[in-house]
Amino acid sequence: MVDPHSELTHTTHGDTSSHADLTNIPAHGLHPVHGFDVNPWQLCWRGMDIDMIGRTESLFALSNGHIGLRGTFEEGEPVEQPGTYLNGFYELRGLPYAESGYGYPESGQTVVNVTDGKVIRLLVEDEPMDLRYGRTVDHARCLDFRTGTLRRSTLWTSPTGRTVRINSERLVSFTKRTIVATRYEVEPIGEDMKLVLQSDLLANEPLPLPDNDPRLAAALDSPLVSALADCDGNSAVLVHHTKRSGLTVAAAMNHELEVPGNADTSIRADGDLARLTVAATVPQGSKLVLTKFVAYGWSARRSVPALRSQVEAALAMAAETGWDALKAEQIEFLDEFWRDADIEIDGDPELQQAIRFSLFHVLQAGARGQSRSIPAKGLTGPGYDGHTFWDTESFVLPMLTYTVPGAAGEELRWRHNTLDKAKARAAELGQQGAMFPWRTIDGDECSGYWPAGTAGVHVSADIANAVGRYLRATNDEAFEVECGVELLVEIARFFAGFGHHDRNGKFRIDGVTGPDEYTAVINNNVFTNLAAAQALRDAVTAVHRQPAVARELGVSPEETTYWATCADNMTIPYDEEAGVHQQCEAFTLLDEWDFEASRGRYPLLLNYPYFDLYRKQVVKQADLVFATYLFGDQFTPEEKRAAFDYYYPITVRDSSLSACCEAVAAAEVGYLDLAYELMCESVFTDLHDLHNNVSSGLHIAALAGAWTDCVAGFGGMRDFGGNITFAPRLPSRLNYMSFRMIVRESRIVVAIDRDTATYRLLDGPPIELAHHGTRFILSDKPVTEPIPQIVDQVPPPTPEGCEPYRRPHVTP
Amino acid sequence: MVDPHSELTHTTHGDTSSHADLTNIPAHGLHPVHGFDVNPWQLCWRGMDIDMIGRTESLFALSNGHIGLRGTFEEGEPVEQPGTYLNGFYELRGLPYAESGYGYPESGQTVVNVTDGKVIRLLVEDEPMDLRYGRTVDHARCLDFRTGTLRRSTLWTSPTGRTVRINSERLVSFTKRTIVATRYEVEPIGEDMKLVLQSDLLANEPLPLPDNDPRLAAALDSPLVSALADCDGNSAVLVHHTKRSGLTVAAAMNHELEVPGNADTSIRADGDLARLTVAATVPQGSKLVLTKFVAYGWSARRSVPALRSQVEAALAMAAETGWDALKAEQIEFLDEFWRDADIEIDGDPELQQAIRFSLFHVLQAGARGQSRSIPAKGLTGPGYDGHTFWDTESFVLPMLTYTVPGAAGEELRWRHNTLDKAKARAAELGQQGAMFPWRTIDGDECSGYWPAGTAGVHVSADIANAVGRYLRATNDEAFEVECGVELLVEIARFFAGFGHHDRNGKFRIDGVTGPDEYTAVINNNVFTNLAAAQALRDAVTAVHRQPAVARELGVSPEETTYWATCADNMTIPYDEEAGVHQQCEAFTLLDEWDFEASRGRYPLLLNYPYFDLYRKQVVKQADLVFATYLFGDQFTPEEKRAAFDYYYPITVRDSSLSACCEAVAAAEVGYLDLAYELMCESVFTDLHDLHNNVSSGLHIAALAGAWTDCVAGFGGMRDFGGNITFAPRLPSRLNYMSFRMIVRESRIVVAIDRDTATYRLLDGPPIELAHHGTRFILSDKPVTEPIPQIVDQVPPPTPEGCEPYRRPHVTP
Repeated sequence: MVDPHSELTHTTHGDTSSHADLTNIPAHGLHPVHGFDVNPWQLCWRGMDIDMIGRTESLFALSNGHIGLRGTFEEGEPVEQPGTYLNGFYELRGLPYAESGYGYPESGQTVVNVTDGKVIRLLVEDEPMDLRYGRTVDHARCLDFRTGTLRRSTLWTSPTGRTVRINSERLVSFTKRTIVATRYEVEPIGEDMKLVLQSDLLANEPLPLPDNDPRLAAALDSPLVSALADCDGNSAVLVHHTKRSGLTVAAAMNHELEVPGNADTSIRADGDLARLTVAATVPQGSKLVLTKFVAYGWSARRSVPALRSQVEAALAMAAETGWDALKAEQIEFLDEFWRDADIEIDGDPELQQAIRFSLFHVLQAGARGQSRSIPAKGLTGPGYDGHTFWDTESFVLPMLTYTVPGAAGEELRWRHNTLDKAKARAAELGQQGAMFPWRTIDGDECSGYWPAGTAGVHVSADIANAVGRYLRATNDEAFEVECGVELLVEIARFFAGFGHHDRNGKFRIDGVTGPDEYTAVINNNVFTNLAAAQALRDAVTAVHRQPAVARELGVSPEETTYWATCADNMTIPYDEEAGVHQQCEAFTLLDEWDFEASRGRYPLLLNYPYFDLYRKQVVKQADLVFATYLFGDQFTPEEKRAAFDYYYPITVRDSSLSACCEAVAAAEVGYLDLAYELMCESVFTDLHDLHNNVSSGLHIAALAGAWTDCVAGFGGMRDFGGNITFAPRLPSRLNYMSFRMIVRESRIVVAIDRDTATYRLLDGPPIELAHHGTRFILSDKPVTEPIPQIVDQVPPPTPEGCEPYRRPHVTP
Repeated sequence: MVDPHSELTHTTHGDTSSHADLTNIPAHGLHPVHGFDVNPWQLCWRGMDIDMIGRTESLFALSNGHIGLRGTFEEGEPVEQPGTYLNGFYELRGLPYAESGYGYPESGQTVVNVTDGKVIRLLVEDEPMDLRYGRTVDHARCLDFRTGTLRRSTLWTSPTGRTVRINSERLVSFTKRTIVATRYEVEPIGEDMKLVLQSDLLANEPLPLPDNDPRLAAALDSPLVSALADCDGNSAVLVHHTKRSGLTVAAAMNHELEVPGNADTSIRADGDLARLTVAATVPQGSKLVLTKFVAYGWSARRSVPALRSQVEAALAMAAETGWDALKAEQIEFLDEFWRDADIEIDGDPELQQAIRFSLFHVLQAGARGQSRSIPAKGLTGPGYDGHTFWDTESFVLPMLTYTVPGAAGEELRWRHNTLDKAKARAAELGQQGAMFPWRTIDGDECSGYWPAGTAGVHVSADIANAVGRYLRATNDEAFEVECGVELLVEIARFFAGFGHHDRNGKFRIDGVTGPDEYTAVINNNVFTNLAAAQALRDAVTAVHRQPAVARELGVSPEETTYWATCADNMTIPYDEEAGVHQQCEAFTLLDEWDFEASRGRYPLLLNYPYFDLYRKQVVKQADLVFATYLFGDQFTPEEKRAAFDYYYPITVRDSSLSACCEAVAAAEVGYLDLAYELMCESVFTDLHDLHNNVSSGLHIAALAGAWTDCVAGFGGMRDFGGNITFAPRLPSRLNYMSFRMIVRESRIVVAIDRDTATYRLLDGPPIELAHHGTRFILSDKPVTEPIPQIVDQVPPPTPEGCEPYRRPHVTP
C-alpha cells in the first residue's frame, strides 16, 4: 500500500536485494481484477489463460527503446506473436492501389520480427515443457517497474507426472542498450530428473500473417536471408539481411551455466538457427541455472564481419559485467527515472498501478532510442507496421520532455536526421521547406491513404511545436544549434508556402486533415492553423536567437517578417451564431450524426464509409478540444468551455488519442469527475484492452496520457512561452496526488490534496512558477498554496453508447 | 464536296450501288492531313504506318452498341490491341488497397477481349501475308459513315516477289445485333498462285498487359476457359466462360466461298481455336472470295447448349440474309440516322468530316445496346476498363435523346435494371434511395478511389436529369411507368436524405465531388446542388403525373412536399465581393494555381498530388460553367458571363469532357470564335489524338460534344421544362450550319447562315419553338428569322500553356 505522502521523503528505491530472488513474486494483492494483482510497483498475472497469451505478450513486453521483446515464454510456445524488434529495422513492402495517383508512396516499411534470442526450450525427461499439456500447478508472471525485469515462476507437472519448478527473469538493459539477458532456473521436484535445455537464436519464426493483404504477408513471411552463422564454446552468432530494404542484423548469444554435477553441452549454428544444448541429470533439491546474454546490432551500411564483431564485442562486455551487475544497473537506472517522473495518488490503488505501468512503458519506448523514433506501439508489437505518427511529438514527448528530457531530445534528433527526406517529400509534392511523413519508420512516407496521410500536414507543425517545447523546457543549446533551428526554419518555410493570404489579408491553410480523422481534407482546421502559427513564431524566435545558424540556412529578414505576418493573420473559424469555434471552416453547418443509429457500431470507421463520416458533425478524437489545451493561451476560458460543451458530445473517441486530451480540457473547465473518468479510459486502454487490439502492441501515446492527465489535467500545468504554471484541483475520487518534473536545471515535485498544493524544489536553481494565476519563486523552501474551490459543474452528455469506460468493479 | 444547303432537299442517301464494290475507296480528297483524306462521308487512311496501328484500330472500330470490333487487319498482325468486345461482358479483378476502408469495392469489373472472329489469315504460296514484310505497294482503309462498313484495299508484294490485291469489307450489323460479317477477296496479280485462307475464331489472344497492375494483368491474361468447341462443314462454334465473373460467351462462324475451280477446305474446332482452312490455286485475273459470318452471344445465366443454339440460330439467319442484304440493311439504317441527326456546315471541310465521324461513332456506341450501358469508350478499346461513367447521361444522351431517342431510352432502361444494386449500395453506405456507381459495367461500383468515386454523387443526379430530359423530349409513357418514375423517386430519396437543412433553413449537400476532379470532397458544389434540385423537382412532377406508380413505391404527399422544399432551399454559393458563383463553398477563397510553373506539366494529375490540386483554384474540366449551360434557367446572363470569365482562365481542360461544355457556354455569352476553337478541340480529340491515348479507345462523350456544340452552342438550343428554344449565331469561320432534331413526334431541321435562321418541320405535328426569345409555332411552312447581331466580345485569357488546340495547318 502506498503511503500517500511518501514522495516528500523518498528519494530512491535503492534496496535491490529483494529483486535478487527470481521467485520474488508477491502474494496476491488487492482485488485481483482483469487477472492482474493490484500492486503499486508490479504487474502480475497468475494462472494460465491461453486467450490472454497475445495480450500479455504486449503488456509484459520489455524494451529499452532500441530492442523490444514481447513477453513470450522462454519455451517458445504457446505463443501468438513471438516478437523481437530493433528500432529502425524494417522490410519494404509494395503498396498497392486500385487507382494510383501522383506522389503515392510505392512501398512502405514494416517492422520485422528479427532473430529471436528469448527462446530456451526445456525437455523434462522425454517430454517438452509446454503449458498447453500436463498440469500447471502454479504459474505467475510479473513485470516489475523498479527492477525493469519480467519474472516468471511456474510449477508444472508433465503429462507423465514429473514436476518441475521454473523460475526465470529477463531484462533488456537500459544501461547497455544492445544487450538482453535471461536467467533461467529449473528445479526437479520430488525426484532426480534428466533435463535438456536448448537455448536458441532463431530467425524467420512462423508468424500469424495478415490474410487480407498478400503483399504485407509476403514481406513478413521469412523476411530474413542468412548471411553468416557461426559458433564456438557457449557462444553463437547469426547474421541475416532483409530481402528488399537492404538492412543487416546480427544477433549473438553466450551462456553461463550452473549445474550440479556434469552436463553435456553442445552448440551449433546454421542458417536460421543457432543452438546451445545442455543435457544434465539434476538431483531433486538442486537447480539447473542458465544465464543467457544476447547482443543485437543492425546496420544499413556496415558489413557482415563488422556487424558480427560489434555484437560479439557487446556480448563480451555483457558477460564481463554479469547478470547481477546488469540487474543492479537496471535498478539504478529506474530509481533515477522514478525519482524524476513518479506520480503517486491516493484513493484508487488500481489506477496507481496503471499509472506506473504507463510511465514505465513510455520510458521503455523512449529511453535508449538514440536518434531513432518512438513508434506508436513502441517496440511491443507489430501493430501499425511499427510506424511512428504524430502521437510521438504530441503525446509522448510532452511527458518525456519534463521527465527524461534526453530521450525527448534524441527523438527530435531522429526527426532532424530525416529532414532531407522531408524536404525531398515537400519538393515532390510541390511545396517548400519540409513535409514530415504521416507514418514512417525511417523518414519515408508510408501512408497509402492520402486524405489522412499527406493532407495531415499538422504532423510537421507538431514536430516544430515539440522542438519549441523542448527548447523552452531544457535550454539545450547544442540541440538548438545542431537541429532545432533547422527543423523550425524548414517547417516554417513549408507552412508559409503552403498557406496563403486571402483577399482580406487572412492567412488560410486549406485542404488539410486535422487530428480528427472523421473529418478530412478541409479548410482552416483550427488545430492545424494554431499549431502552424506556433511553429512560425517559434521559428522567428529561434532565428533571432541563433542568427549564425539562420544565416547558414539562408533565412532573410523578409522571410522571418513574413512568417510573423502569416502567424498573426491566421484564420481561426468561429461560429458567431452558435458561439463556438469551428473545428474547421463550415464544420458547425454540417449535418448531425445519428448517434442513436450508430449505437454499438464502433469504431465507426469499420461500419461507415469515410465519405459519410467526413460530411457530418461526428468527431473521432479530440481536435478542437485538444487545441484548447495545447494552445490554451489563444482561447478565453469561456471559449474553452463552449468548445468542450459543443465537441465532447459529438466525439466518439474511436482513437486512443482522444480520452487523455479531453480529460485535460475537462479538468480545466471544471468537469473534474468527468476528467477522472476520461483519464481512466486512457490509462486502462491497454491493461483492460479497451480497443480489443492490445495483442498487436501497446498504445504508447494513450499511456503517456496518464502523465499528461495527472500533470496538465489535475495539476493544471501549462508551459506557454517557457512559463510553467499550475492550477491544481483534484477529482472527488482522489484524496491526494503528487507528480515530479524537470524544468531546465530544476527538479520539482508538486503534491496536491483537496485543499492545498505544495511545491518543492528537489534540486537545481530556484524557478518561477504560478499557482492558479499567482506567480511565485520556488527555491529551497516548499511553498504551500490553497486551492480555490469551485462549484461542481455538470458536464455535457457523452454520445449515446460512447460513455467513458468504467471499470466494472469500481463504483463511480 | 458538300452542297451547303442540300439539307433542305435531301432526304435519304438511298443509292447503295456505289457501296457494292469493295474497292470503292475514293481518290485523295482535300488536303490529306493527319494522314486522313478530307471527305465528308468517309474517313480514309492511306499507306502503312506501324506507329498508327493502335490509333487506327480505335478510329476504325465498328460497333452496334452490342458488339464492338477494333479496326484490326484480317490477317491478325501487325496489331496493338486485337479487341472484340461484347457490351456487358466482363471479368472480375481484385481491387487492392494500401489501406482499406469500409465500403471500398473488393473487386472491379474489366472488359475482356472475347473470341476474335475478325481473323482471316492468308498464305501466298508459302509466305504469310504480313504488312511488316515484303512491300506494300498500295494500302488504304476507309470507314464509311453511310454504309457503316470498314473497307480496305491492299496491293502487296511478298518478300519473294508475288503480288496480290486484297479487298475486304467488314460490318457489325445495326439491324441484326448479334452478327458480324466480313467479305474478303484475294486476287493474284501477274501469275497464278496457290493461296491458303485460314478463317479463325480465336479466344485468349495475347494482349499487351498493363505492367503496373499485376492483378489487372492477371484478370486480362487468358481470361476465358473453354467450355465447348465444335465444327461441321463450313461452320464452327466456341463457347467459353470467364474464371471469376461466371459469364459465358459463345461465338459461331460460317462461311461462303467463291473460288474459281477447286479448293480444299477443312475445318477444326478445339479449345481456344476454331479454323476453316481453304487452299486453292487461283488463276491470275480471278479472285478467291470468302464471306464470313460470325454470331456472338453471352449470358450470365443461360447454359452452354442454350448459348450455342442461340448463336447458331443467329448465324443461320445471317447466312440466309446474305452479305448483300446485310449491307443494304446497314445502309438503310444509316440513312435513317443521317436523316434525323446529320449536321452540315460550310467553311471547314475537315471539321465537317470530323463532325460526321463523331456522330457516327456515337451512334455505334449506343445504337443497339438494348438495356446495356454506353461505356466511356464505347466498344472501341479497353480504356477505363470498359466502364460507364456520368459521361453517358450528361454528354452522350443529350445527343441521342434528340436524334436516336430509342437508344437513349434503352440506356436508361439499363440504369433501371441496375437499380437494385444502386439501392444496395446506398444502404451499404448508410444512405436512403439509390446511389449509382461512379464507374461500372454491370451496376456494381468499381471505383477504388472514393473521393472521386463514391463522393461523386452527382452521377445519380445526372441519371435523374437524363430521365427528365428524355421524358420531356419523347413523352415515352411506357418508359415513365416502367422505369422513369422509380428512378426519379429513388434518386430523389437519396438526395433528400443525403443533404440536410442547416439552422437557417438552407439545404446543404456536403462532402461531395463535383464534375471538376481537381476539387474533391467539398461542400455545396453548385453543379451537384442544381442537378439534385432538378432531380428532386422532376421526381415531384413524375409522382404527380403517375400517382399509381408512386403509390406502389410508397411515396407519400409529405415526401414529395419535402423534396420540393429541399429543391427550393438549395444552397448555391455565391461570392458577393467577387461577383461570381463559387464552384463550391469557399472556392474563390482558395489559393491561386501557379500556371507559370505548371506550363508543360499537363495533365496536372500526373505531375501534382491530388492534395495540392484540390486546395487551389485550378479546375480540370468545366464544372460551374457546365452548370450555367445545363441549368441555364437558374442564372442571369450576367452571372453566366461572370462565371465564364472567372472559371475559363483557371480551367486546364485535362479532361476530354471540358472543351465541349465550355464551347456551349462561350457561344452563349458571345465568345463565338473561342467557342469554335473549343468545339474543334473536342471534335478532334480522337482524330488528332490530343490526349495521346486514342489507341485504348475513343472518347465517346467528347465526340457527342460535336453535336452539342453545334446544336446547343451555335444553335443555342435549350430545353428547359420541355420548351425547345434556339438562339443561333455562327462563329466567323462558318458560313452555314444546319442540324436536325427529333422532339416528341416532330422532326425538325434548323439551317443557320450569318444573318438568318430557317426552321423547317420535316414531319410530325406542329411544335412551339423560340428564336432568340421570340416564340413561334413551326408547322408545314418554314420559318426564317433574322439573327440579332452582337458586337464581338473579347474573351478572357486561357491559362498559359492551355490554349485551345489549333490544327497546325488551319489559320485561326
